[in-house]
Amino acid sequence: MMTLFEHPGSSNCYKIRLMFALLGVDYACVTFEHAKSHNRSSEFLKQNPRGLVPVLEAEGNYIWDSTAILVYLARRFDGESWLSVDGLAMSRVMQWLALSQSEILHGLMAARHIILGKRRGVLEDAQGLGRVALGVLEDRLQRNNWLASEGPTIADIACYPHVSRAPESGIPLDAYPAMRRWIARVEELPGWVPWTPRAG
Amino acid sequence: MMTLFEHPGSSNCYKIRLMFALLGVDYACVTFEHAKSHNRSSEFLKQNPRGLVPVLEAEGNYIWDSTAILVYLARRFDGESWLSVDGLAMSRVMQWLALSQSEILHGLMAARHIILGKRRGVLEDAQGLGRVALGVLEDRLQRNNWLASEGPTIADIACYPHVSRAPESGIPLDAYPAMRRWIARVEELPGWVPWTPRAG
Repeated sequence: MMTLFEHPGSSNCYKIRLMFALLGVDYACVTFEHAKSHNRSSEFLKQNPRGLVPVLEAEGNYIWDSTAILVYLARRFDGESWLSVDGLAMSRVMQWLALSQSEILHGLMAARHIILGKRRGVLEDAQGLGRVALGVLEDRLQRNNWLASEGPTIADIACYPHVSRAPESGIPLDAYPAMRRWIARVEELPGWVPWTPRAG
Repeated sequence: MMTLFEHPGSSNCYKIRLMFALLGVDYACVTFEHAKSHNRSSEFLKQNPRGLVPVLEAEGNYIWDSTAILVYLARRFDGESWLSVDGLAMSRVMQWLALSQSEILHGLMAARHIILGKRRGVLEDAQGLGRVALGVLEDRLQRNNWLASEGPTIADIACYPHVSRAPESGIPLDAYPAMRRWIARVEELPGWVPWTPRAG
């Protein structure tokens, strides 16, 4: 049984829970109350010196970083639909994984955290970076149903969490009709689970 | 012939030039004087709405993002030595690619740019993040010659540029002996080329 070390508020941890759910694969969970390393046990830090969740314990290994874990799950539990090994197809997936860890994380997530009072920063700068991400995504989704391929890949799973909550970053999605259709498409995938469990 | 759109001062562009050199693959270069999008032609931006270099034109596609391009080159011109397609092995490479685009970029590179007066920011914060990256790398390299595998992979190529220039980020490498041996190992790889061409 694989074990996911996670924090409920972390979007990077949610990506992994969502991927497990979509693959229909069982796993155990160790939940940390805080997302920062100083709350971690020294035993955990010995396996994960970077000090961040998510970390996946699998096959006797500790895999840290959400992108690395998404790649692992796609390769381990799927043929090539969630991640092709063809050079060009794989690089297309990687582009969106990179966007999710740069403009989306340092733009959309940062803006959301500034608004929530979780971190300091210049809101307008973060929102500006977030809008670059949304523009690139909308451009792609106006011509395609999914980000990297004809069907869903781990690229969609990596970008979806903060994009779907862009209004919490102070950026309404009215100007992005293709993106709203894509968000609905992700949420209709068999096995989809919400980030924060909904009441009722 | 593939074409690399690049900026000479960009570490992410250097990674691609280094990878091409190590693979012994020929390519054409289009060099931009500035690294920011507002200096780009609208034609270039149409192919690369993110507005950043490096971008590689290959097989009629524009591949943006350095990680995506490294993955493309490794899969296209190599068997599996630079990037294995095994789930666990691939996830190990991805971990270090993620570190290169997070703690190294927002720590080491940011500190270097603050010192050079190229950007604003809190130097101590950037250096702190950079030291997290160096600690994780040193820990790994004390037990292994290369980051992700028994031999060099694209993980080493992605982390090497800013790590080798950590002193320019205000962080001497005296405390990191394993890392200094690894830097020498990278620079002894057949085909290695320097970031900034050296005189004589």
